[in-house]
Amino acid sequence: MDPRFKLVRAYRIKEGASATIEDPVTCETPITIYYNDQELVTLLCTLEYLDELAVGFLRSEGFIREKEDIRDIKIDPVAGSVRVSAGGPAAVAQNTFLKRYLTTGCGKGTSFYHLSDAVCKRVETGFQINSSQVLNLMIQAQRRSELFKMTGGVHSSAVCTKDKILFFREDIGRHNTVDKLSGRCLFDGVDTKDKILLTTGRISSEILIKSAKLGIPLIASRSAPTDLAIRHAAELGVTIAAFVRNQKMNVYTYPERVIP
Amino acid sequence: MDPRFKLVRAYRIKEGASATIEDPVTCETPITIYYNDQELVTLLCTLEYLDELAVGFLRSEGFIREKEDIRDIKIDPVAGSVRVSAGGPAAVAQNTFLKRYLTTGCGKGTSFYHLSDAVCKRVETGFQINSSQVLNLMIQAQRRSELFKMTGGVHSSAVCTKDKILFFREDIGRHNTVDKLSGRCLFDGVDTKDKILLTTGRISSEILIKSAKLGIPLIASRSAPTDLAIRHAAELGVTIAAFVRNQKMNVYTYPERVIP
Repeated sequence: MDPRFKLVRAYRIKEGASATIEDPVTCETPITIYYNDQELVTLLCTLEYLDELAVGFLRSEGFIREKEDIRDIKIDPVAGSVRVSAGGPAAVAQNTFLKRYLTTGCGKGTSFYHLSDAVCKRVETGFQINSSQVLNLMIQAQRRSELFKMTGGVHSSAVCTKDKILFFREDIGRHNTVDKLSGRCLFDGVDTKDKILLTTGRISSEILIKSAKLGIPLIASRSAPTDLAIRHAAELGVTIAAFVRNQKMNVYTYPERVIP
Repeated sequence: MDPRFKLVRAYRIKEGASATIEDPVTCETPITIYYNDQELVTLLCTLEYLDELAVGFLRSEGFIREKEDIRDIKIDPVAGSVRVSAGGPAAVAQNTFLKRYLTTGCGKGTSFYHLSDAVCKRVETGFQINSSQVLNLMIQAQRRSELFKMTGGVHSSAVCTKDKILFFREDIGRHNTVDKLSGRCLFDGVDTKDKILLTTGRISSEILIKSAKLGIPLIASRSAPTDLAIRHAAELGVTIAAFVRNQKMNVYTYPERVIP
C-alpha cells in the first residue's frame, strides 16, 4: 500500500448527474521530530523520505550542519515520530530555536522574520543560466509530479543542475518539499552552491530563506513571489525567477544570472 | 498607498527577449497577536482586516467565544501588532494553547492533530443546497478576487448564503482568510450554522477544523482535500465539496446535502 495517497469514495456531480467514484486523495500525517530525545516540532506531511524531512528540518533550523553531526535516525511511522540523535552546533541552535519558539508562541512560520536570526551567508557567485534551461527544468518537473497528477493535493520541489533534475520531492507541505531536498543533499554530500531550486509553490520569505541557507543562487517557481521574499533575496544574493511557465518568466533579483 | 501589494521592478523574459516591467507583488507582513498583554503568535499575513484576523485567530483557538468577551482591540501596523484585551474562557484556553505550543515546539500547524483537542461540536443540520448554487458561488468568488488577479500570490475564502457571498477575504495565508472571516462573523453576529465556506486553497485538516468550529455545514474548494480532512469531516458532520470548477465537483462526506 502506497502511504502517500488513499482511495476514498466520492460523489462526482457533473452536469446535474451524480456518480460514485473512487478518488485518490493525498494523505496528511502528523510526524513529530525529536532531537536528542527532545520533542521539537510536529509537521503535517506526506509519508515518505521521513529521514530527509527530519534532517532537512534540523539543518534549516541550525541544529545540524554536516552529515558527520548525525549519529542515529529512528523512524517510527506508527507512532508518527522521527528521532534524530546528533552532535554538532546543537546547544546554540537549541537555545535560539527554543527562545524563538517560546517568545513568539508559534513555530515554523515565525522562525525567520528577522534576517539576523536566519544566520544566513550572502550567496556570492558567478552563476549564470539560460532562460531556456530554466523553462526546460520546469517542464521536466511537471512531468515528474505523479502524486500531484493523481491527487491534485501536493506541492513539489526539485534540486537541479542547469540541465537536469537531481532530486524531486512531493509533499502536502511546501516547506516539507524543501526540507526533504535539504536532507537528501546532506546525505549525499551534494554541493548546492551551483544548483537551482524549483518549486510549484509560491516563493514566500520562509521558502526563500530555507533556499538561501543552502547557498542556492537561483530559486524558480511556477507561482508568485512575495515582496518580503524579494527583499530577502536582494539582501542574501539570491535570484528569484517566478511565474516560470508558458515560455515566460519574471526575474526579480540579480537578473544578470538569467540569460534570455 | 494600498498596503496589500507593491509595485516592484522585474525583468520579463519572453521568447528570448527581456523587458523591464513594474510588477504588482503581494506583500507579506509579520503581525504579532497579543492576548491580554501576552504575546501569543506571529502570523505572516496581508495587511488588512487585522482586527478580524486577531479576533478570528483567538476565536479559532478558543480564547474568545462571544463578541461580549472582547474589551478592546489595538492595532499598531508600524510595530506589526494587534493587542486584544478580552474576558471569557481565557484561562482554560490559555493553558491548553500554551501546553500544546510548548510540548510540540511548533505552533499553528500542530494545534489540532487530535480531534479531542479541537473542542468541536458535531454539526447537526438538515442543510441542503443545489450543486448549481455551489458552482455559482464559486464563480462569484473568482470574480471578486482582485488581489489574486493582480498578484497571483494570495488565497481567498468567503462566507456565503446559498445564493450570495456575505464576506470575502484574500490573504497570503490560507488559514488567515478563514480567521478573518471568523472574526467578521463574530463582530457582525452572523450565525454561521447555515452558511457555506468557500476557499481557493486545499482543504487540509486545519482548515476543516477551523470551519467546523464555526458550525459550518459545507466547505467547498476549487482545490483538493486531504484524507485527514475527510476523516475529520466525517466525524464532525461537515460536508466537503472539492474540485468545484468547470461545472463539476466531488462531494466526499454527507453527499445528501448537495442536490445534483
